[in-house]
Amino acid sequence: MVDEQYLGQEVVLKGWVQKRRNLGNLIFIDLRDREGIVQLVFSQEFGPDALKIADSLRSEYVIEVVGKVVARDENAINPNMKTGKVEVEVSDVHILNKAKLTPFEITDNTNATDDMRLKYRYLDLRRPEMQKALMIRNRITQTVHRYLDENSFVNIETPYLTRSTPEGARDYLVPSRVYPGHFYALPQSPQLFKQLLMGAGFDRYYQIARCFRDEDLRGDRQPEFTQIDIETSFMDQDEIMEMTEGLLKAVMKDTLGIELQTPIKHITWDEAMDRYGSDKPDIRFGMELKDMADAVKGAGFKVFDSTLEDGGQVKAIAVPGGADAYSRKQIDAKQEYIKRFGAKGLAWMKVTDDGLQGPIAKFFKDRRDQILEAAEAKPGDLLLFVASTRKVVADSLGYLRKEIAKEQGMINEDEFAFIWVVDWPLFEYSEEFQQYIAAHHPFTMPNEEDLELLKTDPHKCHAQSYDIVLNGYELGGGSIRIHQREVQEDMLKALGFTKERAEEQFGWFMDALDYGFPPHGGLALGLDRFAMLLAKKDNIREVIAFPKNSKATEPLTHAPSEVAPQQLEDLHIEVADEGKEDSEE
Amino acid sequence: MVDEQYLGQEVVLKGWVQKRRNLGNLIFIDLRDREGIVQLVFSQEFGPDALKIADSLRSEYVIEVVGKVVARDENAINPNMKTGKVEVEVSDVHILNKAKLTPFEITDNTNATDDMRLKYRYLDLRRPEMQKALMIRNRITQTVHRYLDENSFVNIETPYLTRSTPEGARDYLVPSRVYPGHFYALPQSPQLFKQLLMGAGFDRYYQIARCFRDEDLRGDRQPEFTQIDIETSFMDQDEIMEMTEGLLKAVMKDTLGIELQTPIKHITWDEAMDRYGSDKPDIRFGMELKDMADAVKGAGFKVFDSTLEDGGQVKAIAVPGGADAYSRKQIDAKQEYIKRFGAKGLAWMKVTDDGLQGPIAKFFKDRRDQILEAAEAKPGDLLLFVASTRKVVADSLGYLRKEIAKEQGMINEDEFAFIWVVDWPLFEYSEEFQQYIAAHHPFTMPNEEDLELLKTDPHKCHAQSYDIVLNGYELGGGSIRIHQREVQEDMLKALGFTKERAEEQFGWFMDALDYGFPPHGGLALGLDRFAMLLAKKDNIREVIAFPKNSKATEPLTHAPSEVAPQQLEDLHIEVADEGKEDSEE
Repeated sequence: MVDEQYLGQEVVLKGWVQKRRNLGNLIFIDLRDREGIVQLVFSQEFGPDALKIADSLRSEYVIEVVGKVVARDENAINPNMKTGKVEVEVSDVHILNKAKLTPFEITDNTNATDDMRLKYRYLDLRRPEMQKALMIRNRITQTVHRYLDENSFVNIETPYLTRSTPEGARDYLVPSRVYPGHFYALPQSPQLFKQLLMGAGFDRYYQIARCFRDEDLRGDRQPEFTQIDIETSFMDQDEIMEMTEGLLKAVMKDTLGIELQTPIKHITWDEAMDRYGSDKPDIRFGMELKDMADAVKGAGFKVFDSTLEDGGQVKAIAVPGGADAYSRKQIDAKQEYIKRFGAKGLAWMKVTDDGLQGPIAKFFKDRRDQILEAAEAKPGDLLLFVASTRKVVADSLGYLRKEIAKEQGMINEDEFAFIWVVDWPLFEYSEEFQQYIAAHHPFTMPNEEDLELLKTDPHKCHAQSYDIVLNGYELGGGSIRIHQREVQEDMLKALGFTKERAEEQFGWFMDALDYGFPPHGGLALGLDRFAMLLAKKDNIREVIAFPKNSKATEPLTHAPSEVAPQQLEDLHIEVADEGKEDSEE
Repeated sequence: MVDEQYLGQEVVLKGWVQKRRNLGNLIFIDLRDREGIVQLVFSQEFGPDALKIADSLRSEYVIEVVGKVVARDENAINPNMKTGKVEVEVSDVHILNKAKLTPFEITDNTNATDDMRLKYRYLDLRRPEMQKALMIRNRITQTVHRYLDENSFVNIETPYLTRSTPEGARDYLVPSRVYPGHFYALPQSPQLFKQLLMGAGFDRYYQIARCFRDEDLRGDRQPEFTQIDIETSFMDQDEIMEMTEGLLKAVMKDTLGIELQTPIKHITWDEAMDRYGSDKPDIRFGMELKDMADAVKGAGFKVFDSTLEDGGQVKAIAVPGGADAYSRKQIDAKQEYIKRFGAKGLAWMKVTDDGLQGPIAKFFKDRRDQILEAAEAKPGDLLLFVASTRKVVADSLGYLRKEIAKEQGMINEDEFAFIWVVDWPLFEYSEEFQQYIAAHHPFTMPNEEDLELLKTDPHKCHAQSYDIVLNGYELGGGSIRIHQREVQEDMLKALGFTKERAEEQFGWFMDALDYGFPPHGGLALGLDRFAMLLAKKDNIREVIAFPKNSKATEPLTHAPSEVAPQQLEDLHIEVADEGKEDSEE
């Protein structure tokens, strides 16, 4: 893009007409390209033909101009533009392509609906903020390649047409033409292939890999997403985390010019749940969960006392200045919301200079000091209590903590707060499946000291796994993997696999473990989410060039679509009757 | 890997046991890692416990050793190993994992079958030549990222779940769960998306993209392959070719240390067909096709004369020293082979010091000098003639030229000969479909001067397209694309599309061209093929970590596989009856 350095020079510029102001004998045009906007001036004096053509230009025409870079008049300088001190006096112009009136204006502030934006994605992507978002994503990608190459990682591609590695989500299937009734699956992650590459002796592998999950779409989920996938042999957890920190440091520096301080803080999973009510704590603000058991026990408030007697928890957060900020009605609404986490209610008290206020304050009249101390509260604060099991308390107060921080503007949006969450349980109980499932995946190594527990009392095992969390989002996660057949067999057994099912599904992989597999481990970072956070967006759609909408369709190309009967015949499949009858959901 | 630099130092090494020689009180072990092999020495003197453990080690055990790097005895130096001047005296050793006896030895010379190699790919990949091949591929990948980043190209990912862009091959389909009876297609290339990114103003895009084609597999075809995909706005053909040469230069340098001379030679498609009988000429050797019409016309040999009268060609290649090298029987076998190209026969003469020999020599007795001059032949050469249409002559002699060059060792296997093939026809006639099809794809821009021809006599159009050829392989190809709706409509019409079908299939794309698309073009390089050629392999399987076999299956994971009935139900599809009945093809 031209600036003061080009003063006096003749330049050739190509780009799009952003805006045109016609003053009759003088026409101004804002010319836009991927680097920004520059002002063109057309006049009789600089080029009479150019002036004539300029009159016919419309928004989004593609043009090529020849002109001289000159300084703007003092009063015409625009300090908000990189090119704001100069303009180009155009002597010649060519129209490279015309444009119809676009369905929405190519500006950062757009009132186009999400579906309009996706349907005309090639126009939406012209908007400077979208250009910037994809440039940030590109910069992350470039830095990942450079850093990992410099650190002797080998980029290796793994198959997209493969057998499924069941990781809890539904697979996308691809019918085989050669083998009727057989299907490939698109990978949910390259997990087993990257482990095989360690078995193959590659030592340090990485790939920026597409992953596929046929799940119901939420805010930051897409049918396909991209993972920075890393695996190493002979490195332990600390070494992998240190290497990852080097990568994160390089990305933050290259992308946003930020000096990330390392080592990044660690927190155990237990502590994260206790203090933040979340396994992905947002540590940009305080308002931590405080254990109120000692302060409230025996004061006569039955709900608290009986919960504690049953082995439950009573915890609270203290909302700074919340006493005035929240009405009873607003608190009731929050109480209603947290019922989805299993909470029976939300108890509250306001802290005043004189004491405590609210429906349950009467029980704690003479405990004001203990309560303020336990909750780290001060006059003016609002105390929100949840009494229940550990999980319900964590989920409820963890949610309230984040929600209220947003409402109260407690979050510094310019901060990037990383934290490692370590020492995870190996299993977690799934309400959906009514059984224990792998907290990460079935290839995660238990802590060395828990290897015996895996046989006897597996659900007490902790794992050699680690998540990296950024601003309350799980940016990535990893683990040391199982490299011995016996341990892998014990793990599958603990997950409820029969010997037969284990063999059928993972036999080919466990066979590989028989032939000299090195100790190994790695991690994967979500590239979409990383780009989303660095671009300060709230949906990964904003950092994906051609995402699907919430119905998993692409409004631009109309995918998925119907196909020719011959195509299905070639693939030996038919649309099921119920499918033909169904209208679109 | 340790070498003389480490002399006297204590080192910790981890790797695989390649070989063990037990001399009783002295055990030698070759330890292998991804960088190579180093010799370990165990003895009572360096570590008695280590010696004991060393005795239990077997091939492919994974071990960690602590030891001192020392110089080998003069007579024990191995000049063929990078580490051949040193060995490591081991004081301590740990077994990190054991290994069963592997089904084949981990050495470059293997007698394992292709399917064995794929079934135990994690062992196959341990072989040094496979490590090297994938390292070469990695180096190409890294250089592509670096070079294109340095040249302001933006890495942008395009969808893998999308609508098909018909490019002549069969699509892989992915059933939609949300929309019964609808299917995504896996992309055969990101062609239209990269053009849309130019419409979106990204100016310079690239991606290392996976592409999918459900075709019958030949030697260097795979169901999924990888493409270095590049697109630019505002650059013309020469600029794109120059940029590409910069990229190729960087890759050759980084990968093999070769200084590629640029500019790379250009040849028109017509000239390539005339001189080499191929649109991807191998220019590492001569033996070009020579037009013999003037030299043979009217000599009385009917086959030649009638062919020429019918407007056909008579051409020949002169095989250096071929007079002695080929028997009549061998020539007959070649004649038999080229019948598949439509050739009726293969005429031949041997050049002796005295004259010409062979069944047809009698017709040309007094034309020896003309014939030798036209064929650029000399005594001792074998002349092989084909008389037929231009296409049959080119296909037949083009094939013989390559085949004989291989047989006669005329090819310098260490040479990397690049050449551009330019000025392609826009269309080619497909015998299979009995109609004209796009020689590249339907988005290729005709030459500027042929734009009117496109409306009136489209099959005479030439295209702004260019292929880059390496050692007789099409390494990549590209073109300037159509950026105006009218031209795209004319092109589809010339391809036999009705207005309705054009609209139905490409309407969404042509709509995009209405909104200010810049002039643009690009190219794609086949990464698999590039790696194959630089690694001097003859099949892309050798540079893909986990390829499919010739039946499009993965013997390691057994993909494709049968799936649970519920999965198909979720996707609203059924296996067709004929599919259930069919046995495997």
